[in-house]
Amino acid sequence: MTIDQWIEERKEVLLSELMEFLRFPSISAQKKHWDDLHRTALWLKDRLERLGFTTTLLGEPPVVWGHYKGAQETPTVVFYGHYDVQPPDPLSLWESPPFEPQIRGEAIYARGAADDKGQVFAHLAVWQYFMESQGRIPLSIHALIEGEEETGSKTFSQILRENEKAWRGDVGIVSDTAFFSKDVPTLTIGLRGLVYTEIRVCGPARDLHSGGFGGVVANPALALAHILSALKGPDERVRIPGFYEKVRPASAAERRWNWELPANEAHYQRLTGAPAIVGEVGFSPLERIGIRPTLDVNGLWSGYTGEGSKTIIPAEAVAKVSMRLVPHQEPREVWESFRQYVERIAPSGVTVSVSLLHEPAPPFETPVDSLAYQLAAAAMERAFGKAPLPLREGGSIPILNLLQQATGGIPIVLMGFGLPSDAVHSPNEHFQLNQLWKGIKALAYFYESLAAKK
Amino acid sequence: MTIDQWIEERKEVLLSELMEFLRFPSISAQKKHWDDLHRTALWLKDRLERLGFTTTLLGEPPVVWGHYKGAQETPTVVFYGHYDVQPPDPLSLWESPPFEPQIRGEAIYARGAADDKGQVFAHLAVWQYFMESQGRIPLSIHALIEGEEETGSKTFSQILRENEKAWRGDVGIVSDTAFFSKDVPTLTIGLRGLVYTEIRVCGPARDLHSGGFGGVVANPALALAHILSALKGPDERVRIPGFYEKVRPASAAERRWNWELPANEAHYQRLTGAPAIVGEVGFSPLERIGIRPTLDVNGLWSGYTGEGSKTIIPAEAVAKVSMRLVPHQEPREVWESFRQYVERIAPSGVTVSVSLLHEPAPPFETPVDSLAYQLAAAAMERAFGKAPLPLREGGSIPILNLLQQATGGIPIVLMGFGLPSDAVHSPNEHFQLNQLWKGIKALAYFYESLAAKK
Repeated sequence: MTIDQWIEERKEVLLSELMEFLRFPSISAQKKHWDDLHRTALWLKDRLERLGFTTTLLGEPPVVWGHYKGAQETPTVVFYGHYDVQPPDPLSLWESPPFEPQIRGEAIYARGAADDKGQVFAHLAVWQYFMESQGRIPLSIHALIEGEEETGSKTFSQILRENEKAWRGDVGIVSDTAFFSKDVPTLTIGLRGLVYTEIRVCGPARDLHSGGFGGVVANPALALAHILSALKGPDERVRIPGFYEKVRPASAAERRWNWELPANEAHYQRLTGAPAIVGEVGFSPLERIGIRPTLDVNGLWSGYTGEGSKTIIPAEAVAKVSMRLVPHQEPREVWESFRQYVERIAPSGVTVSVSLLHEPAPPFETPVDSLAYQLAAAAMERAFGKAPLPLREGGSIPILNLLQQATGGIPIVLMGFGLPSDAVHSPNEHFQLNQLWKGIKALAYFYESLAAKK
Repeated sequence: MTIDQWIEERKEVLLSELMEFLRFPSISAQKKHWDDLHRTALWLKDRLERLGFTTTLLGEPPVVWGHYKGAQETPTVVFYGHYDVQPPDPLSLWESPPFEPQIRGEAIYARGAADDKGQVFAHLAVWQYFMESQGRIPLSIHALIEGEEETGSKTFSQILRENEKAWRGDVGIVSDTAFFSKDVPTLTIGLRGLVYTEIRVCGPARDLHSGGFGGVVANPALALAHILSALKGPDERVRIPGFYEKVRPASAAERRWNWELPANEAHYQRLTGAPAIVGEVGFSPLERIGIRPTLDVNGLWSGYTGEGSKTIIPAEAVAKVSMRLVPHQEPREVWESFRQYVERIAPSGVTVSVSLLHEPAPPFETPVDSLAYQLAAAAMERAFGKAPLPLREGGSIPILNLLQQATGGIPIVLMGFGLPSDAVHSPNEHFQLNQLWKGIKALAYFYESLAAKK
């Protein structure tokens, strides 16, 4: 039975199984959901066991480790994915509840549909196809599926550090990235690193009457505004000393791709709904996302945020600030410069503290000249009818460098099937069914071609 | 029976009645509490009727109008107060629930204890004393107690505008201010005006993945930080063009008082718990509050404000910003300059809108050479054993100018009994019982001396 026939016959069942997976509110950022993370891990463990994997849960929230032992001499594939999801807030903007998956039009809507449950599910489906059509999977597999990707992979990175080279393999594969657009199949060849911080500005011991004390007490919200506005200028350049120092120019060839794609301002305006597209002068929008580092405020709060007016000087103000890094930037160095800079520019009259919300993550690259990459490209072309473009993506999968070390330095290909319009991390996240079905095919071709090379 | 004897006998009953008043969660900023506002007004109406007032409820939330007709030829006092309170957030910082009054040490704790229910109650008590000890109140009284002082007095200002000179009187009295400190009895002679605004910065149509789009989309939280940091410099000077233009220097005499009081930085640090006291160079802390205008951010929010990290570019960012004005500044002019300035400095890539959260209020002054002021000062001295200092306060009672017009331009004295340590607008608001009892005495002496002048 070909993969096409198999998918055609099982679509309904596959979708209902994916919905089971999507129903778990596995939000790693919120402690109250850790039971849900555990339940999701158990669901994955059970599915892997039914596919003939031996399984182990490592740590808490558990990393699900499934091992399938193929025939001797078959290559070993290390698959990495994550079953945790971003918080769904603001809930009021969802058209259907984030943990009650719904198919609307040609897509399935739920938090995690594209990032990353839907894409993890594509691998489960391919393995099931092999078992049902051939009685076995033609390769050995280490499946490592964690529950803290969205919050810095704390448990998994500790496990990887403690088990250096425990999961040796030949090729790594991750499906947690997106196409440039639905008509431009893409193989992601680079991801940015991530440094995620929190700045807390403390002023008076309590919220004060702004009439009674306005004029003698520094306003923590204003002090925070002064700090934030000094982090990135109106020219969209980050102002932290040394921030760009280690960034190297991209190759001429890469810059050519980046300028040739229809990745113009209109494209991004359509995707984001922003009033205008901004960014560093001299770089195309795609370059600003792929090859340039950046800084964003992810959250901000202080004082009275309710209806109407309250006349207070807030006791404190807090911002979540993160930076995306590109190759050759050192995450720990960037964090250190950031910390020193913020402390140096802290206005008088307030106390400023800076902290890391998770371990800084380096950027990641896939070697385009590796066999694994070539096979992945061929499989994508066969499934989607077009050769994929090698592109850098602006997002981060913080754990990939450590994973690479713990698997013996293997090449890891980023074969993802999302689309930029999927609204990952946003309300109404969804995954296009066409991308799911063709993605399953591409993965089947990839696994098969890899097995044939043994 | 003297007022001293009367208070001594009735302390317990008076406190339990004040607690009834404090139990209403009469938060005017929140629509869901408008039923509570109405219930509070009915409670006041009932008490006034039992004291021999004829009463009317005007508008919604109601302005309670009580009229006591004294003997012919007695002067008419116009009393103004408010029964609404500030929101109690953040709730977690209250040691006892804000609407379950508790006596701890020498004070009564509840939202509204000092601002303004406790002080309104002091007048109710004095009127009751007159009725019980003399069978009548020696004056005519218009009591006007509204339920929207904390949110801009919308209903009351409309009523005042529509009934120009309807409540003609001879002297106005308001108890909604504070002493400089418990050992320095104070008569407030000036209040700052207030312009309360909201700035809303809109960026992308939804929260975006900060990896996928960081670098091409303006960050609304950062754009807001740029705007806010341009409103007031690190030198604590407001940067809105023309903001200080109409402010006149204070008289030499007034500046002398302001420098002679123990209102040094240590004093304000003790009161506020702030790491340092800041402010405009060349002005004492008291002057920065009393005679100088200022600007504060009262609230701020954008993006993800929950636990842990969420990697998004927020769709919008909002700040509540208010300005306190001093004599000769025109609230409407200040608002107009503010609006134009914010619109002019709005960064590209976002849409900025500015709105007023309530009607701009002019500053207010009491003439210190009026008979009313002299009688108030004598009454304060008799009750507290020390002549009161004439001082400007930094807060605002937005409606006073309109009230003055609607009562025939009478002098209004600000005879308040709060302390700067009362935590009004903050968690754990309280009112010192000593200030309550002596305040009732001071008011009794004031009403009596006014009646004697007929």
